[in-house]
Amino acid sequence: MLSKSQIKLIKSLSQKKFRNKHRLFIVEGIKGVQEFINSDFEIVSIYVTDANLKVSEKYLTIIDEKDLKKISFLSTPQKALGVFKIPEDKDAEIKTLTVVLDGVRDPGNLGTIIRLCDWFGVENIICSKDTVDCYNPKVVQASMGSLTRVKVLYKDIREVLERNKEIPVFGAMLEGDNIYSEKLPEKAFILMGNEANGISEEMQEYISKPLTIPQFGKIKETESLNVATATSIILSEFRRNASIER
Amino acid sequence: MLSKSQIKLIKSLSQKKFRNKHRLFIVEGIKGVQEFINSDFEIVSIYVTDANLKVSEKYLTIIDEKDLKKISFLSTPQKALGVFKIPEDKDAEIKTLTVVLDGVRDPGNLGTIIRLCDWFGVENIICSKDTVDCYNPKVVQASMGSLTRVKVLYKDIREVLERNKEIPVFGAMLEGDNIYSEKLPEKAFILMGNEANGISEEMQEYISKPLTIPQFGKIKETESLNVATATSIILSEFRRNASIER
Repeated sequence: MLSKSQIKLIKSLSQKKFRNKHRLFIVEGIKGVQEFINSDFEIVSIYVTDANLKVSEKYLTIIDEKDLKKISFLSTPQKALGVFKIPEDKDAEIKTLTVVLDGVRDPGNLGTIIRLCDWFGVENIICSKDTVDCYNPKVVQASMGSLTRVKVLYKDIREVLERNKEIPVFGAMLEGDNIYSEKLPEKAFILMGNEANGISEEMQEYISKPLTIPQFGKIKETESLNVATATSIILSEFRRNASIER
Repeated sequence: MLSKSQIKLIKSLSQKKFRNKHRLFIVEGIKGVQEFINSDFEIVSIYVTDANLKVSEKYLTIIDEKDLKKISFLSTPQKALGVFKIPEDKDAEIKTLTVVLDGVRDPGNLGTIIRLCDWFGVENIICSKDTVDCYNPKVVQASMGSLTRVKVLYKDIREVLERNKEIPVFGAMLEGDNIYSEKLPEKAFILMGNEANGISEEMQEYISKPLTIPQFGKIKETESLNVATATSIILSEFRRNASIER
């Protein structure tokens, strides 16, 4: 049985202000919860109905479906829900390719970008403070465990770029150079902007090379590509040379 | 004022069986509705609150916010809702690059793929009959008007590939050849599979070349890429050569 105060605490974690107050976030689904248990994240408590999870008993509480429904953020709860600690925001050490997000707002987009960075071996994502919180339950869900392997840091991104002036900044723009013709280095910042407005004016001045994914359709009415889709193509372009052994 | 039967009819269009019965679908939002008005789709009726749409008056009904809320599928209705006719499913003439979907189920994924095909100049998407319906309101919303420029056809995809045996079939697989090393032709089928199960066994035998997007992350636990994300990278690879003038 869950106490009322436990339910209230967990439910409050849908809101950023309570996540920040308690420094806690939640993960749902057996696979996802197990990935976070196995990771560097600190476990607080794990609630399961009949799932088989490899975790020390001291964290484990068996609950019934009805209780799980009370604490779950999913329309169809997934047998396991874990509460974990939000780690301290460390300084990012920029070693290789790093994605910088300037005001990405949609949780699904951030989740997809985290998953992409995991796939393409990008260790750090540096987000402006107005980017959606990566511990938002929808982001955690969409990132499919990749959040255990990719560091997402919230910084004054202008300050980060200032401090790393020797690293080139490639910005995704509607009017830029054809990405397919560019020589892309192994160490770089890839700057992606907000869904509706793109990269903010303030940040545009930091771009050393604006990149565009050329459009092939006949009619030019087509909207710009979605930010997660554009990120996938850009990361693929940065990585493709390394993967062709010739 | 809307009659009860009008409201009932429009609301019923959230379900595929009623869309098929009436051969109607809906579009929401000023920009989207205007794009469909300007396209080859046949207009049935347009409902607006205070939007300024360029359309013959005979189709136009001005309604209040309360009525719009009754017929809208959005949590925040967008001032305009259009009802259009579903066109007859024609035979696909395979001229260039064609995307073939084998059981894609998520409306957001199909919407994103339609938008991507629009961007990359792919004229036809051929879907297996168990792929999500492109006139589903969520697909229409996610495709952002691209459905007016890209033809989405529902066919026995096995039969289509049989009939076009001279065109190579590139299938997205977890175990395939490195896409970055392949010479990709201008005329081809790109076969993409279901979110959870990939390309069905039945269809795998039609693949002339299995393609894989290499993974760069250290840990191999990473889930496969999302089908829409993988489609974006594959389409980009097919088009990149054409865009580099050297």
